[in-house]
Amino acid sequence: MLKGIESIVSPKSIAVVGATNRPGSVGQSVFSNLITGGYQGVLYPVNPKSPSIMGVKAYKSLLDIPDQVEMVVMVIPAGAVIPTMEQAAEKGATGAVVITAGFKEIGGEGVQMEKDLARVAKEKGIRLVGPNCLGVMNTNPAVSMNASFSNQIPKKGNIAFISQSGALCTSVLDVAAGRNIGFSKFISFGNKADVTECDLLEYLRDDDDTQVILMYLEDISDGQRFIEISREIAWKAKKPMLALKSGTSPEGAKAASSHTGSLAGSEAAYDAVFMQSGIQRVEGIGELFHYAQAFSAQTPPKGKRIAIVTNAGGPGIMATDAAVRHGLQLAQFSDETKKRLAEHLPPTASLNNPVDVIGDATHERYKAAVADVLEDDNVDGAIVILTPQAMTDILETAEIVPAVAKNTDKPVLCSFMGIVDVSEGAEYLQKNGIPNYIFPEAAVRSMAAMANWRAKLEAEGRKSKHVQANCELGHNMIMDSMGKEEEHVMHQHEANTLLSCYGLPILKNKLAKDESELEKAAKEVGFPLVMKIVSPQIIHKSDAGGVKVGINNLEEAKAAYAEILANAKNYNPDAEIQGVYMEQMAGKGVEVIIGGSRDQMGPIVMFGLGGTLVEVFKDVSFRLAPMWESSAEAMIKGVKSYKILEGVRGNPRSDIAAVKDCILRVSQMLAENPEINELDINPLIVYPEGKGCAVADCRVMLKKK
Amino acid sequence: MLKGIESIVSPKSIAVVGATNRPGSVGQSVFSNLITGGYQGVLYPVNPKSPSIMGVKAYKSLLDIPDQVEMVVMVIPAGAVIPTMEQAAEKGATGAVVITAGFKEIGGEGVQMEKDLARVAKEKGIRLVGPNCLGVMNTNPAVSMNASFSNQIPKKGNIAFISQSGALCTSVLDVAAGRNIGFSKFISFGNKADVTECDLLEYLRDDDDTQVILMYLEDISDGQRFIEISREIAWKAKKPMLALKSGTSPEGAKAASSHTGSLAGSEAAYDAVFMQSGIQRVEGIGELFHYAQAFSAQTPPKGKRIAIVTNAGGPGIMATDAAVRHGLQLAQFSDETKKRLAEHLPPTASLNNPVDVIGDATHERYKAAVADVLEDDNVDGAIVILTPQAMTDILETAEIVPAVAKNTDKPVLCSFMGIVDVSEGAEYLQKNGIPNYIFPEAAVRSMAAMANWRAKLEAEGRKSKHVQANCELGHNMIMDSMGKEEEHVMHQHEANTLLSCYGLPILKNKLAKDESELEKAAKEVGFPLVMKIVSPQIIHKSDAGGVKVGINNLEEAKAAYAEILANAKNYNPDAEIQGVYMEQMAGKGVEVIIGGSRDQMGPIVMFGLGGTLVEVFKDVSFRLAPMWESSAEAMIKGVKSYKILEGVRGNPRSDIAAVKDCILRVSQMLAENPEINELDINPLIVYPEGKGCAVADCRVMLKKK
Repeated sequence: MLKGIESIVSPKSIAVVGATNRPGSVGQSVFSNLITGGYQGVLYPVNPKSPSIMGVKAYKSLLDIPDQVEMVVMVIPAGAVIPTMEQAAEKGATGAVVITAGFKEIGGEGVQMEKDLARVAKEKGIRLVGPNCLGVMNTNPAVSMNASFSNQIPKKGNIAFISQSGALCTSVLDVAAGRNIGFSKFISFGNKADVTECDLLEYLRDDDDTQVILMYLEDISDGQRFIEISREIAWKAKKPMLALKSGTSPEGAKAASSHTGSLAGSEAAYDAVFMQSGIQRVEGIGELFHYAQAFSAQTPPKGKRIAIVTNAGGPGIMATDAAVRHGLQLAQFSDETKKRLAEHLPPTASLNNPVDVIGDATHERYKAAVADVLEDDNVDGAIVILTPQAMTDILETAEIVPAVAKNTDKPVLCSFMGIVDVSEGAEYLQKNGIPNYIFPEAAVRSMAAMANWRAKLEAEGRKSKHVQANCELGHNMIMDSMGKEEEHVMHQHEANTLLSCYGLPILKNKLAKDESELEKAAKEVGFPLVMKIVSPQIIHKSDAGGVKVGINNLEEAKAAYAEILANAKNYNPDAEIQGVYMEQMAGKGVEVIIGGSRDQMGPIVMFGLGGTLVEVFKDVSFRLAPMWESSAEAMIKGVKSYKILEGVRGNPRSDIAAVKDCILRVSQMLAENPEINELDINPLIVYPEGKGCAVADCRVMLKKK
Repeated sequence: MLKGIESIVSPKSIAVVGATNRPGSVGQSVFSNLITGGYQGVLYPVNPKSPSIMGVKAYKSLLDIPDQVEMVVMVIPAGAVIPTMEQAAEKGATGAVVITAGFKEIGGEGVQMEKDLARVAKEKGIRLVGPNCLGVMNTNPAVSMNASFSNQIPKKGNIAFISQSGALCTSVLDVAAGRNIGFSKFISFGNKADVTECDLLEYLRDDDDTQVILMYLEDISDGQRFIEISREIAWKAKKPMLALKSGTSPEGAKAASSHTGSLAGSEAAYDAVFMQSGIQRVEGIGELFHYAQAFSAQTPPKGKRIAIVTNAGGPGIMATDAAVRHGLQLAQFSDETKKRLAEHLPPTASLNNPVDVIGDATHERYKAAVADVLEDDNVDGAIVILTPQAMTDILETAEIVPAVAKNTDKPVLCSFMGIVDVSEGAEYLQKNGIPNYIFPEAAVRSMAAMANWRAKLEAEGRKSKHVQANCELGHNMIMDSMGKEEEHVMHQHEANTLLSCYGLPILKNKLAKDESELEKAAKEVGFPLVMKIVSPQIIHKSDAGGVKVGINNLEEAKAAYAEILANAKNYNPDAEIQGVYMEQMAGKGVEVIIGGSRDQMGPIVMFGLGGTLVEVFKDVSFRLAPMWESSAEAMIKGVKSYKILEGVRGNPRSDIAAVKDCILRVSQMLAENPEINELDINPLIVYPEGKGCAVADCRVMLKKK
């Protein structure tokens, strides 16, 4: 399918249907951009009335073009798009960009028209970007295509930008122009009737011109495919990706029947997807630009230990604060480095980190200090801060930075603080591959983003082994339990059996259908045990007085049985009593929750510690299922209360490996059984290291697919 | 004392000691800045060698000047500063700016020299800014003074900037020049040998030219005075203050003997001071500039409900996300507003918030939409977003914003997204009092900062009544308990008595010095009770087996007594046993912690919920003592786990008023007794509303003052 995308991004010939000479019109703008942008292929304007557009011979219709056409750009009324698509097929086109709006985004008939358009494109074998988009740009000199109606044309660079919002593109291009930032490909993909973010990512994965990928997304069409392609980009092609995802504030939380559901909500799913995909999520366009500059020009640092070189104390402290706030560390210099710094700097300079080269520092002193710290093995990257002082030779200082940085693969970012006085230096840095930021905190955040990205890649990088499971039995159980119902809550003994099919550590249990089975069941389970009513009409067992814990012998079991049945009758006289569920009583341990729910992108797994406080703090983590082993690990480490599993206040370390195993089993169970709509294992009791864990309670909700 | 500051900021005459004609020197720069800055008073250059500086007659020494001199600027070697100060006094000077470096900041003899300088200035009645500073600027046209060596001269504005770092000033001035931001006063106060941030704030409080105060601080000299002056500025003078405080990352947490101490650390104290002072703290200079633009040009909104008007969907969603993230709400429009919007906008436009005026909107459509939403009573402020589209008339749209905004006192901020295409519009907005931001998230954050500042002012604005307390008895207890020791941990029964002097709800208790007193003590306290060993050598009572809970009758009490004594002997045979402390056993309730410790700024109170999880989440709040009633309230509401006090999962609401009362009592006790070095009430057990609370355990550490 990449062939079609190639036809859109690097076509040998383009027909612009709707090209016109009318000043200020979109059709004029698109054609003019192609001409003035220096497009290297052949252009065919199509206009039923004009003999030529901008002096180029025009054709009355696509069919009048004498040659084959690889790509068609459409700037025509919405109603004309589908017929034009059919003509495009006749001319052998394999790609199309539909700039025209008036489809899905207007609702009603637009929705149907977009579906028809997608169907026609598919039937005719044409890949289609849009409708309702700004267009597509490719700055590769062999193509040099600006098939858009943007006012600003990007300069060449190694950053690809793909955006679900066309309007945002115009602003991004305008800012990029002001900041001297270039792009390899710039694609506004609009309503994504056909080509989605996944298709574009697949293309960019193999695009040699692209080293960094930025994306603006409002939704993701296929979570699992998105993760797969992104992982190839991050781990194999090693291209950093930054995503700005909007719509992060579902102002009313989704009503859900389970604990997990109430904590989830689709933004958690997006976070999970980005985590698993090796994508750095950003909160705003300002951040996107800052990070893009760093990622596109510098190598992410191998570790989190940075050095700061500054000619002013205050900004040095501010940078230190920002570093610690964003998870970086101030490098401890070796004695060798301190010795060298002492040789190069005046006696009042600070030889510790941040290195204060003092207000009267010229470029020579900066040069020595930056070189000294970059040579230290304890330093993973450097930030150079400059304030414009009386003695500061700004341009000369700017010149030494890339000169020194080229001797190392450690990243160097600058903050020449100011706008007016420092402008010449700042410009020199930008042009020579050293990102410069007006304020040190932006430099630090960008360095932290690179370091965190690299650390995340290492943390989430291992594949999972398939867990041992009796999948068939599990699935049959689900189907039996659900029967003909649309939605169904599994009985606890059924749920436990399902969990055991997937190797989850359930407690010994037995259903006593009536009193006669009580003794045998109790013997099988062993004391102490827990007894729970089983009745389809009684969901909240505790409220109904249907649960008794700490049963130590048969006598107590018999008494409990009688009481449970009496309570149940009292609670709901019509309830059908299917028996009493006898379960081994779990020992004490740390209580955690593993949950599952479904999002439009796929099944999602939740992890968190149990208890009221965790609910208050919403301290939980999510990943899409199925997940890699390292993702399960990252999930566990990703909650703040992880410290409790590590053992606090003299408590032993919990069996974290067993928790990881459970998460992977739940993950696989969710991935293989689309009928499991929601799931709560709450609590899973975790014992000290080596002692495993136990499912103390669970709830499985099914829904027909 | 304000007279002296006035002499520094608005002097009628200035002598510049160290003025020279040497190009590139600081002495030349300072004098030249005064001349070219258009200073309105009389200038006297002092230079032992040159007959004139920049054509102005020079004097060999201060004493040679024939007239009285109000202010002296010194740009001379450090060693010459003190003698010059003495001469300045002879000439009747009441103010001085010492730009010269080489004092405290170089350590060693510099520290002593700075002390001497401060002493001399005080003796001579001269107020002194510096040493080691950039200088002082006043843009008031009647003064027009630039007594600094900055390259950039600020334009006139209503923002005062005071900074502990001189180097930062140069960058701030450079950025301000690039962004067209003006200042009323700009003061680099350096080492603050005499004039501190408090003195300057006191001056700026009454300065009519100043409407917003920005400060860069590395420390605060006197927390209580700082709070007092700041509160006058915030609540009486109603001038917003923004503070950038660096040094927020004490990389190693302060080792402290108490729970409170380990959670505190001085940054918490600074946060507390800013909270109580009505100061908005910012995290970086970028943020400082963004907020300053908003505060200096617009009125903070009365509430948190904002309207967004945009010509592009994506940026509208991004702004919504940012609004929710930063605590704002999207306003719900009235039906009247929706009706008007429907009249003014095309059918495909969104009439809900954000209002999407669609990509082809011209200034007319923007004008109608912005006016409509601002007229709605449900709207507290508006953000106008513009992306440069083909049809957008950027400058005309910029023109309508201040025209519409002048009819309302609701704040309006803009994000004309871009740099190049939008530049003309952006500049128009800035010049006409409408802050503009390249990206919508910065506009939203600035709006949120204004709203939060106003809300905080309302939340912290009520004064406290002095609590009823037996202060004298309390203080005597402290002195008796401490005796001749430098540091001392109070025995629990002493600590309890101290707490009771301040009206804190302690449990009934009695010390049984030996077995013979046991029965009487138990009767007095009542069952059930708790028994604890009292021995100066046994600090960790539980570890020593020295605590027994749930004692229900005399028999149990006797057995417990024997066991406790045996355990104690076993634990430490040499321990001096002073008796066994009998205490009423507290009922169950929500456990909270109230702590106290001391910071260089003063006594600090901590509040948080009890338990391991809260420790893990570090979910605590701080305020400096003594505090206002509203501050105690804000402290309680300021922890995330506040929800637990409100009652979760069917639990009743706790007696929050009683907790507030305890905080105020602890606050007063700390403020009145400097010997209390650290204090932990852990736990304070809080009962349901109306039922009060009880100190279940406490620890008071004393230190000689």
